[in-house]
Amino acid sequence: MIRRLHTAEPGFAAALAALASDRASATDVAAPVAAIIARVRAEGDAALIDLTRRYDRFPITPETLRVSAAEIDAACARVGAEQLEAIDLAATRIEAFHRAQLPRDIGFTDAAGARLGLRWGPLDAVGLYVPGGKASYPSSVLMNAIPARVAGVGRIAMCVPTPDGQMNDLVLAAAWRAGVAEIYRVGGAQAVAALAYGTEAIAPVDRIVGPGNAFVAEAKRQVFGQVGIDSIAGPSEVLIIADAGQDPWRVALDMIAQAEHDEAAQSLLVTDDAALAEAVAAELARALETLPRASIAAASLAAHGAIIIARDLDEAAEIANRVAPEHLQVMTADPDAVFARIRHAGAAFLGADAPTAIGDYVAGPNHVLPTGGTARFSSGLSVFDFLKRTTFVALDPAAMASIGPAAATLAVAESLDGHARSIRARLTRNRAENLT
Amino acid sequence: MIRRLHTAEPGFAAALAALASDRASATDVAAPVAAIIARVRAEGDAALIDLTRRYDRFPITPETLRVSAAEIDAACARVGAEQLEAIDLAATRIEAFHRAQLPRDIGFTDAAGARLGLRWGPLDAVGLYVPGGKASYPSSVLMNAIPARVAGVGRIAMCVPTPDGQMNDLVLAAAWRAGVAEIYRVGGAQAVAALAYGTEAIAPVDRIVGPGNAFVAEAKRQVFGQVGIDSIAGPSEVLIIADAGQDPWRVALDMIAQAEHDEAAQSLLVTDDAALAEAVAAELARALETLPRASIAAASLAAHGAIIIARDLDEAAEIANRVAPEHLQVMTADPDAVFARIRHAGAAFLGADAPTAIGDYVAGPNHVLPTGGTARFSSGLSVFDFLKRTTFVALDPAAMASIGPAAATLAVAESLDGHARSIRARLTRNRAENLT
Repeated sequence: MIRRLHTAEPGFAAALAALASDRASATDVAAPVAAIIARVRAEGDAALIDLTRRYDRFPITPETLRVSAAEIDAACARVGAEQLEAIDLAATRIEAFHRAQLPRDIGFTDAAGARLGLRWGPLDAVGLYVPGGKASYPSSVLMNAIPARVAGVGRIAMCVPTPDGQMNDLVLAAAWRAGVAEIYRVGGAQAVAALAYGTEAIAPVDRIVGPGNAFVAEAKRQVFGQVGIDSIAGPSEVLIIADAGQDPWRVALDMIAQAEHDEAAQSLLVTDDAALAEAVAAELARALETLPRASIAAASLAAHGAIIIARDLDEAAEIANRVAPEHLQVMTADPDAVFARIRHAGAAFLGADAPTAIGDYVAGPNHVLPTGGTARFSSGLSVFDFLKRTTFVALDPAAMASIGPAAATLAVAESLDGHARSIRARLTRNRAENLT
Repeated sequence: MIRRLHTAEPGFAAALAALASDRASATDVAAPVAAIIARVRAEGDAALIDLTRRYDRFPITPETLRVSAAEIDAACARVGAEQLEAIDLAATRIEAFHRAQLPRDIGFTDAAGARLGLRWGPLDAVGLYVPGGKASYPSSVLMNAIPARVAGVGRIAMCVPTPDGQMNDLVLAAAWRAGVAEIYRVGGAQAVAALAYGTEAIAPVDRIVGPGNAFVAEAKRQVFGQVGIDSIAGPSEVLIIADAGQDPWRVALDMIAQAEHDEAAQSLLVTDDAALAEAVAAELARALETLPRASIAAASLAAHGAIIIARDLDEAAEIANRVAPEHLQVMTADPDAVFARIRHAGAAFLGADAPTAIGDYVAGPNHVLPTGGTARFSSGLSVFDFLKRTTFVALDPAAMASIGPAAATLAVAESLDGHARSIRARLTRNRAENLT
C-alpha cells in the first residue's frame, strides 16, 4: 500500500518529480469571493450578519459579533487543568524561540561620513484567521498569535466562524493565553474582507495570517496589496531520512502522523537500508489497524507516500534538497552531518527522539511552514512576518560632496535631470551651476 | 498648480485619504499573459524566439538568445570612465550596506535540554528582470543583483528585452559590475515564464525580482507559487517634512525629482510653516520652466501632489505615518527627533543634505521600496529577499520526556491520535502504552 522507489533504477527522477507535483486541489472560487468582498465593503456589519446567518446558520447582531470577555472566561473555565498546562507550556516555549529571533537595528557612519542604517518596527495591527469546526486548532492560534505579540504588534484581531453557534473552548483558551482578546465570530471570505477593509465593528488591520479553506485563501489573495498576507499553505508533508539503525515502528508512526492530516498529505521515507524500508512498510500496515483516522492516512500513503531506497545518505540529502520538504526528519547515527548537507527544508527534526509532531505543538519553532517545495525560496512564519524595516540615510555637506557627483552622473545617464538637480542643489548654492 | 491642504480645515482627513488612494492604472492582461506562459511551457525556446520577433521586432536564435561575453565586454568598453566610476562607487556602497544586513544563525540549548535554532541559507538561483527601452535603468540592476550576490545566491540569470536589437551599454556594465554574466535578450511575460519554468536555453530559477510593465507584473503574479516573486511596485512617491528653516529651492527640486518619474508619481510636502509652503510653491513653478521632463512632472504635481500645512511637526509625523510613504525626507532642525516618531516609511532621508535622489543611486540602502502605503506592512528589497530559514529541533530522551507529554495532550485534544502515538513512541517502548 505504499510505493517503493529505488534511486538506482531508471525513471527515478521522473517518479520523484511526479510525487512532488502539485497535490493541492484547485477550486475556482474567485467570482463568489469577489462578490462577498464587495458586499462587505459596501454594507459593513450588515453583510457580516447576513452572511454569517447564511453560511454558519447562526444569528449574530452588532452587539454579539464580538465574543465577550465573559464568554472567553467561561470557555477557559471549561478547559481541564492538564490541557491548560499543555497550552501554557507550548506558549512559553513558542514565545522563547521567537524572542530569540528578534533582529537588531543597524546604524553606522562610513568612511565617506554618511550615517546609514535600518530600523525594525512592528506592524500596527494584525488579523488572525482561525478556521471553525474540525480544523479549528488551538496550536495554530498559538503559532500565529505569539510571533506577532513578540514582534510588538499593538493590536491582534481574531476571526473564527462558529458554525451553528459552536465555539471551541480550547481555541478561546489558546487565544487568551496568547493575549488575544479581540475575537469576532465571523468566518470565510467575509471575515477576510472585514479585516482588510474594516466595518463598523471591526477596524481594519495591516496583515492577515492564518489557515483557511479555499474561500479564505482566495479572499486573502484578493485583498493582498490592501493588506499583507501570509503564504497560502498547501497540504502538509514530511520527508524522513533514516539509516539502518532506526526503529521501524517509530519511523512508521511518524509517517502516519503526517498522513493522518489529510488525504493530500505526503509522507516520504528515504533510507540507505533496504531492510529498514521493508520493516517500515510492515509497521505502517500494523499501525493503521488501530488508528482512528486510518482511512485518511491510508489514502494519503497510497496516493502520495513513498519509501525511497538511496545509495547512501549523501544521495538521501540530495533527494531532500530536490523535494524541499515542509518537515524534514533526520533519523541517522549522525544527524548533524546529514543536516549540514541540507539546503532546502522548512523545519528540521534531528535524531530519533525528535518527531515532527513535537514541532507541531511544543518544541518552540513555528509550525506554519512552506509546503510543496516552496522551502526553496520561502520560510516558516516568524517574528519577521510581523516586522518591517525602514532604512535611513543622513548626510552632512562633506558626505554629500563625496558621493553626490557620482549620483548626479548616473541620474543624467538615466535621463533623470530632475534627480541630478536635486543632488546638485546640495553641491552648490549657485542656481546656474545647479541647472547644468 | 499644486494643491494646498490645511490639517486644521474640516475635510482634511478625507482629502488626505483621496490623495493616498490607488494611483496605479489597472490594465487587465491576465488572459494574454496566461496564453504566453502556456506557450513558453509547451514550446520552450521556440516560443521565446517567436515572441521576441513579434514584440521586440528582433530575430534571435537558440545561439544568440544569450548575450555573449564579447558583447558584454564591448558594451563596457563603450561606457565612459566617469560613468564606470559612478557605477563602481554605487556598487561598492550598495554592497557594504547589504553586507551589514546579513543575519546570524541562532542555536541554543534550553532548560528542558532541547537544542533549538535556525539556519539562514541563500536561494540557489534568482532571476532578474530588467525592462528595455527608456525604463532600462543601470541603478535598478545594481539594486536587485547586489543583495542577491551578498546573500550568497549561486546563480543570477538576467532577462532584458532588446527592442529592435537595442541594448543599453550601461545596463550591461552594471550587470558586469554586479557579477551577473548570464544575460538573455528576452523580455515581457515570456521572460518571466522562461525564468519560472525553464526552457532548453534558460534553466529555471527559484525567485524572480525586478520591475516591469503590466505584462511582466501580471506574469509574476501568475507564476507565484512555482517561484517566489518580489512585490509589485506601484508609482513612486515622496513625503517631505520641512520646517521654517529650510531652503524652498531644495525642497522644490526634491519634489520635482520625484514627480519627473511618472505622471502617477506623488510628491507631498508637509510643513508647519505657511510661508515655506508658499515659497516652495513659487519655486516649483520656476524649477519646472527649465526641466526636460517638465510636462510629466507638472502633470504629477497637479494630479497627485500637495502641500500640507500642519499645526506642528508632531502632526506632520502623524500624517507621514498615515501615508506610509515609499520615501520620507525629514528636512528639519532636528531630523532625528521627527524620525523617532515615524512608524511607517520605506526609506528615510534625514536632514537638508540627504535628498531622495542620493538613495536612488549611491547611498547604499536599496531603492526598491514599498509603495502606495504598503510600508505599513512591508519593507524594501534586502538580503532577506534572497535568504530563507530552516528551523531545527534536536531532542534527547530526557528532553522528550520533559516536553512530550504536553504535546501528546494537545494532539489528543485536536483529535490527531497519530500525532500523539508518534510522540508516545519516544516516551515508552511498550506498544500497548504507546497506543493508548
